[in-house]
Amino acid sequence: MRPSTDDPVADPTADPTADPAAGTVSGLLRDISGVGTDARRGGYSRPVFSSAETELRCWFTEQARRRGLDVSTDANGIVWAWWDTDDGERRDAVVTGSHLDSVPGGGEFDGPLGVASALVAVDILRSRRFRPGRPLAIAVFPEEEGSRFGVACLGSRLLTGALDPDKARSLKDADGDTYADVAAANGQDPRRIGADPAALDQLGVFVELHVEQGRGLIDLDQPVAVGTSILGHGRWRLSVHGQGNHAGTTLMTDRRDPMVAAARMMVEIRNIALQYRDARATVGRLQPVPGGTNVIPSRVDLWIDARHPRDEVTASLVESIHSRARLIAAEEGCTVTLDAESLSPTVHFDPGLRDRLRTLLPVAPVLDTGAGHDAGVLAGRLPTAMLFVRNPSGISHSPEEWVEDADAEAGARALADVLQGLLEAAGTPASPLHAPMMAG
Amino acid sequence: MRPSTDDPVADPTADPTADPAAGTVSGLLRDISGVGTDARRGGYSRPVFSSAETELRCWFTEQARRRGLDVSTDANGIVWAWWDTDDGERRDAVVTGSHLDSVPGGGEFDGPLGVASALVAVDILRSRRFRPGRPLAIAVFPEEEGSRFGVACLGSRLLTGALDPDKARSLKDADGDTYADVAAANGQDPRRIGADPAALDQLGVFVELHVEQGRGLIDLDQPVAVGTSILGHGRWRLSVHGQGNHAGTTLMTDRRDPMVAAARMMVEIRNIALQYRDARATVGRLQPVPGGTNVIPSRVDLWIDARHPRDEVTASLVESIHSRARLIAAEEGCTVTLDAESLSPTVHFDPGLRDRLRTLLPVAPVLDTGAGHDAGVLAGRLPTAMLFVRNPSGISHSPEEWVEDADAEAGARALADVLQGLLEAAGTPASPLHAPMMAG
Repeated sequence: MRPSTDDPVADPTADPTADPAAGTVSGLLRDISGVGTDARRGGYSRPVFSSAETELRCWFTEQARRRGLDVSTDANGIVWAWWDTDDGERRDAVVTGSHLDSVPGGGEFDGPLGVASALVAVDILRSRRFRPGRPLAIAVFPEEEGSRFGVACLGSRLLTGALDPDKARSLKDADGDTYADVAAANGQDPRRIGADPAALDQLGVFVELHVEQGRGLIDLDQPVAVGTSILGHGRWRLSVHGQGNHAGTTLMTDRRDPMVAAARMMVEIRNIALQYRDARATVGRLQPVPGGTNVIPSRVDLWIDARHPRDEVTASLVESIHSRARLIAAEEGCTVTLDAESLSPTVHFDPGLRDRLRTLLPVAPVLDTGAGHDAGVLAGRLPTAMLFVRNPSGISHSPEEWVEDADAEAGARALADVLQGLLEAAGTPASPLHAPMMAG
Repeated sequence: MRPSTDDPVADPTADPTADPAAGTVSGLLRDISGVGTDARRGGYSRPVFSSAETELRCWFTEQARRRGLDVSTDANGIVWAWWDTDDGERRDAVVTGSHLDSVPGGGEFDGPLGVASALVAVDILRSRRFRPGRPLAIAVFPEEEGSRFGVACLGSRLLTGALDPDKARSLKDADGDTYADVAAANGQDPRRIGADPAALDQLGVFVELHVEQGRGLIDLDQPVAVGTSILGHGRWRLSVHGQGNHAGTTLMTDRRDPMVAAARMMVEIRNIALQYRDARATVGRLQPVPGGTNVIPSRVDLWIDARHPRDEVTASLVESIHSRARLIAAEEGCTVTLDAESLSPTVHFDPGLRDRLRTLLPVAPVLDTGAGHDAGVLAGRLPTAMLFVRNPSGISHSPEEWVEDADAEAGARALADVLQGLLEAAGTPASPLHAPMMAG
């Protein structure tokens, strides 16, 4: 046993009920409800390294320190908060956490719910006078949404070596600033990013709690589910090249307008996706170049987000889109190029860990998800699992995303139960197949 | 006669051939060919109040002062360079000039050609030992393209009172900064903008030289044309409202995706414009909100630039588009709003002035144009005219816009001939109908 201390802030055995607000997920989220609000889009815009996201990382650091956790930020910008065991050895840790960045105009819960629930789960374990037999860590991953530099789960991809550090350093945001420059301007040494096997060796399992991004739990009338898999997904950039010209002086019949070609392609992207059962294809971002009102663009760049449970179907869907786009481009006197920007195969979470969670949460249904998560990236290196908390709007990546207070607290209790069960077990409760099953 | 002076810079009678580079349009344009280049889009981006546009205004001021002209900037940001008569009275002036701002990724000539030609025309008149009987002024108008604050010909609209100063002050650029704030940050007092009848009273006629934004002079095999009219044109913002959601988790059949609706509308905008002879309708700017790759937008804003020689046809075209957009929106579970942002009726230049120019340039053909110009705005207050210089690419608002050196010099000589002819005439050579003829 650690000696007790007079400083409640630094004492991991301190009674969390001494600070009632700290003990609820809704209370913690209320703390940060004014950070990064976006008056123009509605909701929140908290891109990585923005002042809003920086403030949230400071808030997390302070909350974790208040709970006596040992907080540090690693070379990849991941914030780690450790509840060490008495021997102080960091191995075979049970890790939970999520992210604090958001899509532009996103909701309040995507990311922060998992972080706040992790803090409250620690409070709950403390209130149960639970003493972990293995270390527990809360991780906050940067740029999970990829909304600033275009690569989702940037932090976990760097940590695991799934993303080449040179490629990461040269990623540019919408202002043309590189990740390397922005990281350096925010006190992070961009030369030190990249795979960190020593850090990964400390981790035993990772369980991420997240707001559900669909209607599964509404239909099942349950507050919490255990995740089974993450749909494969990818991002492709489609560039349509035409002939820039003056909008007033160029006859309609003389045009090679890439915006008209792109419009026809977007209609076809939707129509093609409708032909594949369970497929999704979306154009959420489009950039005409140069982008003046009185200018026929010379080029239009648009980004396709395509997903399907079977990766070969996603590939076939994208090939259909490409082939149709080439035909439309030719008809419009334009040309088209298609580049894969990122591609994540379908991830089935570790079956042994998933079954352990189902035992610990016997009432919770199991659900898959179409959304990508750091848990999907980390699944390539250690057993991972997810918990989803009901979203009564069924809507996410939008200000309308929602979680009822009671469901948020139920999620934190479920997370605490899962962490306690895993922390009690000796060693990792993974299936014989340590590596995750990759689809396709 | 003015007394001669030892300072060649301040002496309006100095021989321009003393500085050979100052005597050619191509030499002047070469001076500024490095200012405001846009590596990403190609060509030039010189929005009003940018460092590039500010540098160009400084360059013009210096060039005009070097020619002994009296330079000042008025409350609306218009730069005036005066060649006064001996009595120093500023009334019934012959004015020429153009603009120095550009569309994003625009060409080298749209605007600067008219400014450089005006300077060279002064040199030519000086080399002819011509002494004007009326004052001559060169004017440089700000925000002609409307590429920063969305209203084209902002400077001339303020000067003439065509734009309400309160509305101008509240115009916002893409960063959300108001015209008032940006103007103030650039040393202009935004409280002083607005109609300036005293300044207008000084002006007799305005002749703007501009690169042709079409293929008329290529087909006619001529370097210079006299303008007859400016096609009516307008800008409308179409906002498509749908349901923002997650791109991965939302089934295709559950979507109310405003991007798909906007894509269908853009295809129809082209198809409808094709049904109207001589109509043009263009979408060069589109903004999904929030604009994340993995987010179904909640709203898509797009801007329609529509033009036709007959204003009632433009109105009918836009009404057809609106009606078709409403139908598509309903089919996609979306809603749509259409707002006119600016509307300029077709302008026929003063017939008397046009005939005078045809007499002064007997070989030059007459052409109309689909592009808007400050000469079109000023036509509401005084006789105006235009000269067009051949553009061998036929392309404008694009890096491919071009003028051959020989044509540029031919343009400056034609402008000098026109200015000389007008400066020799007593009074304004306008038709009995002083006001311009408005179509429709």
